[in-house]
Amino acid sequence: MTDASSLPLYPHRHLLGIRDLSPADIELLLDRADRAVAISRQPEKKTSTLRGRTQINLFYEASTRTQSSFELAGKRLGADVMNMSVASSSVKKGETLIDTAMTLNAMRPDILIIRHQSAGAAALLAQKVGCSVVNAGDGAHEHPTQALLDALTIRRAKGPLSKLIVAICGDILHSRVARSNIMLLNALGAQVRVVAPSTLLPAGIEKMGVIVCRSMAEGLKDADVVMMLRLQRERMEGAFVPSVREYFRYFGLDAEKLKAAKGDALVMHPGPMNRGVEIASEIADGPQSVIQEQVEMGVAVRMAVMEALLDPRRNQEGRNQEGRGA
Amino acid sequence: MTDASSLPLYPHRHLLGIRDLSPADIELLLDRADRAVAISRQPEKKTSTLRGRTQINLFYEASTRTQSSFELAGKRLGADVMNMSVASSSVKKGETLIDTAMTLNAMRPDILIIRHQSAGAAALLAQKVGCSVVNAGDGAHEHPTQALLDALTIRRAKGPLSKLIVAICGDILHSRVARSNIMLLNALGAQVRVVAPSTLLPAGIEKMGVIVCRSMAEGLKDADVVMMLRLQRERMEGAFVPSVREYFRYFGLDAEKLKAAKGDALVMHPGPMNRGVEIASEIADGPQSVIQEQVEMGVAVRMAVMEALLDPRRNQEGRNQEGRGA
Amino acid sequence: MTDASSLPLYPHRHLLGIRDLSPADIELLLDRADRAVAISRQPEKKTSTLRGRTQINLFYEASTRTQSSFELAGKRLGADVMNMSVASSSVKKGETLIDTAMTLNAMRPDILIIRHQSAGAAALLAQKVGCSVVNAGDGAHEHPTQALLDALTIRRAKGPLSKLIVAICGDILHSRVARSNIMLLNALGAQVRVVAPSTLLPAGIEKMGVIVCRSMAEGLKDADVVMMLRLQRERMEGAFVPSVREYFRYFGLDAEKLKAAKGDALVMHPGPMNRGVEIASEIADGPQSVIQEQVEMGVAVRMAVMEALLDPRRNQEGRNQEGRGA
Repeated sequence: MTDASSLPLYPHRHLLGIRDLSPADIELLLDRADRAVAISRQPEKKTSTLRGRTQINLFYEASTRTQSSFELAGKRLGADVMNMSVASSSVKKGETLIDTAMTLNAMRPDILIIRHQSAGAAALLAQKVGCSVVNAGDGAHEHPTQALLDALTIRRAKGPLSKLIVAICGDILHSRVARSNIMLLNALGAQVRVVAPSTLLPAGIEKMGVIVCRSMAEGLKDADVVMMLRLQRERMEGAFVPSVREYFRYFGLDAEKLKAAKGDALVMHPGPMNRGVEIASEIADGPQSVIQEQVEMGVAVRMAVMEALLDPRRNQEGRNQEGRGA
Repeated sequence: MTDASSLPLYPHRHLLGIRDLSPADIELLLDRADRAVAISRQPEKKTSTLRGRTQINLFYEASTRTQSSFELAGKRLGADVMNMSVASSSVKKGETLIDTAMTLNAMRPDILIIRHQSAGAAALLAQKVGCSVVNAGDGAHEHPTQALLDALTIRRAKGPLSKLIVAICGDILHSRVARSNIMLLNALGAQVRVVAPSTLLPAGIEKMGVIVCRSMAEGLKDADVVMMLRLQRERMEGAFVPSVREYFRYFGLDAEKLKAAKGDALVMHPGPMNRGVEIASEIADGPQSVIQEQVEMGVAVRMAVMEALLDPRRNQEGRNQEGRGA
Repeated sequence: MTDASSLPLYPHRHLLGIRDLSPADIELLLDRADRAVAISRQPEKKTSTLRGRTQINLFYEASTRTQSSFELAGKRLGADVMNMSVASSSVKKGETLIDTAMTLNAMRPDILIIRHQSAGAAALLAQKVGCSVVNAGDGAHEHPTQALLDALTIRRAKGPLSKLIVAICGDILHSRVARSNIMLLNALGAQVRVVAPSTLLPAGIEKMGVIVCRSMAEGLKDADVVMMLRLQRERMEGAFVPSVREYFRYFGLDAEKLKAAKGDALVMHPGPMNRGVEIASEIADGPQSVIQEQVEMGVAVRMAVMEALLDPRRNQEGRNQEGRGA
C-alpha cells in the first residue's frame, strides 16, 4: 500500500452508508481492497500507512467478526487501536451517545468506528466530531463495509457484478446487511432478488429495485450468487418468531434448494450462522461456500476504507470543523 | 518530547496524590504537559519515548474517559499498554488487590495505573510493587491527574493560577476530584470556594483552606472559573438522594446563575455530565465551556506524568526495592 | 532472541499438551525460555521477532495471569495481539466454537491461544485452523505452559529435574495444572508424589506414574519442591465442598507441615491463591516461596513457545492445510 497516493482521492471523509456512494466510489474502494488482500497473506502482515493514527472502535452491540476485523485492519496498517466496549463505559452512568462521542473526539482520534442499535447513529456522530466516522452497523439501516466485502468476494470469483443474478434470502426485515447489499448491487448493475416469508419482508421493499420472490425455487433459479441472512430471532417478538423447523423447511438453504441456482453459484453468509436454521451445514462447509473468504475480504475492505478516509492528501481539513457544538 | 531530558528530573517515582506534590512539582508536570499537547495534534501522534515499556491499566471501577485517556497517552508514547478490567480478572475468584498487583508486578511492568473504590489503594500498591504507580482515582480520596488536567486547562486560558477565584460546585462529599483540585489550587495560590447543599459537604471541609458558600449566587460572585461536579447519585443511599428537579433549581448551573461569575469565566466539568441535573445543556455546550478541552488536556497530562515517572535518568533504581514482601 | 535461528527447530506446529512432547522438546523450550527472561528485565523490553504477526487470545474462561502473560509475551515480541473475550463475542449469539475459530482463522492470524472449559477444545481447533494453536487450559485436561513455567522455575533454582522429589498437593481432581505437571516432571525424571483427600483424587491416578500420599507429612517428607494447588470450590457440588477450616487443617501448607520437606524446598502455587485455605500467608510470602518468580517465568515461557512455533524456518507450510472443512 506504499503507492496508495497514486490511487484516486476518495471524495468522502466518512463511510456512513452505501447510499452515499457512486459506482465509481465503490469501485475505488474495491480496487484498494484488492491490493490490501496481499498484506494479510504475508508472514509480516504490517504496513506503516497509518502509523501514529488513532482508531477508536465504539461498539454498542457485541460483535466478534466486525470489531475484530476492524481491529486487525487498523493494527496491520500500523494504527493505534482502542476498543471502547459499552459494558465498561460511562454509558452505564447514563451519558448520551453524543457526549461519549464528543469526549472521545476531544482525545483527537483520526477515525471512529461505530456500531449502534439506532439507525442514523453514525450519521449523527459524523456531524459532531472532527474525525472520520465509519458505520459498522446502525440498527436495521446500513452496514456498508459488509456490503463492500460481499461485493469484493463476488468480484474476485465472478468478475464484474453487472448482469449477475444475486438472491438475498431470509430475514430481510431486520437486516442492515440486506439493505446495504441491495443498494451496492444495484449500483453496480446486478439483478437483485429477495426471498423471504412475508412476515420478514419490509413493506415497500420493491421500491429498492429488487424482485420479490416468495419461494426459494423461484428466487434461486439460475442465480450466480445466493446470500443467506442470519435469522435474527433475538430481534423478534413472541408471536412472530418462526418455528425453526418450519423455517428451515421452506427457507433454509440445503442441497436440494441450491440445485435451482447455477452449478457454480456462490453461497454466502455474513455470519454468525445458525446452522440448521437458515443454512444446512453441508452447504455452509461445501465447495460452493465462500463464507470464510468473506471474512478474509472483510479485513481487506476495512484496511482499504480506513486508508482511503485517512488519505494524507486531505489530512488537515477535518479538524477545522471540529467542536461545532451540540 | 525528544528533548525531555533537558527538563528537570521529577523527584517522585509515583503519582499518588496532589498532597505529595510541591508547587514546583506541579509546575514541572504542567510544563511537560504543555509540550505534550502538540503531539496529539499532529497527524502522526506518536513518539518512541516509552518504546518497549509496559503500562498496565488496572481499573476496578468502570471509566470511559480516564482509562481511555491513559491508554491513548501510553500508546502515543510508544508503550505497550495492557488493560485489566476487573470483570475478566481473578478478582472474581476472590484474589486480593495485593495478590493481583503482585502478580502483575512479577510480569515486570514499568508503570501501573490503578483505579479502585477504596481510599489508599494506590498508596498501598506503591509500597508493594517495583514499578511506578499512578493513582487514577481511589475512593473519595484523590484523583491527581484530573486536578492536573484541570489546572492545565485553566493555565492555558487564564495564565498563572495565583489570585484566580475558583468555585467548585456540587457533590463535594463524594468527590475525589474536588479534593485533589482543592489541594492543587491552594498550592498554586488560587482562592477556592466550595458551593454545595449541606448534605453534600464533608465535615471539616473548611480546614482544607476553602471558603464554604451555601448558594450559587454567593459562590460564583466574580469567579474566574466555575467547576461543576457530577452528582454521584449511585453513591448515595435512599433518603439522602436529592430530587433532581430541586437540585437543579438550587445548584444546577444555568445561564442565570452563571451571570454572577466574571463575564469570561471558564465553565468546567470532569464528566460524565448529568445534563439538566448539575448543568444545563446550553451552558455545557456554550461559549464559556472548556469541557472538551479538559478531555484533550487529560491525554497531555497523562503523557507528561508517565514520561516524568519513567524518566530514564532514574531508570534502574526502582527494581532494587521490589518484592519486599507483603 | 536475535540468534533464535541458531536454536534447534521445534518439531511441532502446536502446543496442545505436555503429552505430545519428548524430553528433548521440553528442554528445547526451557532453554529458549531461559534466554527470554532477560528481555523482560530490560527497560526496553521489546524485540521484533514476531513483528507483523497476529496473535489472537480466545478465552472462554476468565483469567488474570494466563491471558495477561500471553498478551505481554506477544507484545514484547512485537506481535499484534487481539483479545477475544467471550462475553463480547458471537458466542452469545449461539455460534459454535468451531465456527468462531474458523472465522478468526479466516482473518489470517499466525497463532491462536485458546482457553476453554472442555477437554480437547485446543486439539479440535488445531485440526481445523491454518495457524498455530496453543492450549492455555482445556477443562480438567492440560495446561502445558503452566507446567513449562513451573519446570523453568524449578530448573533455575535447583538445576536438572531428574532425581528431584516433587509433591503436588491439594485439588488434583479438578486440576489441569496437576495433570500437565505430572507428565512433564515424569518426562524429565523427577519423582512425583500427589497428596490430597480421597474425594479430590481422580480414580486411577497411580497409572500416571505418581506416588499417592494421604497425608502432608508423608507426601512432603524430604521433598525438594512443594506445589500447592488452588482449591477449586467453584467446580464442586454442594455435598462435596470441603469445609475450609477442615481443609486447611489437614491439607493447607503451613510452617509446621513444611518442616517435613527439605530445608531449602521450593514452595509453589499457580495462583490465584486462597490464602488460609490451601496455603498460609506466612508461607506464601515466606523465603521459600517462588510464587512471584513463577509468574515472571510464565511470560518468558510464553515468549519462548510462541517464538518456537512461529519459527520462520517453517513459516509457509501451515497455510496449505487451511480450510479443510468442518
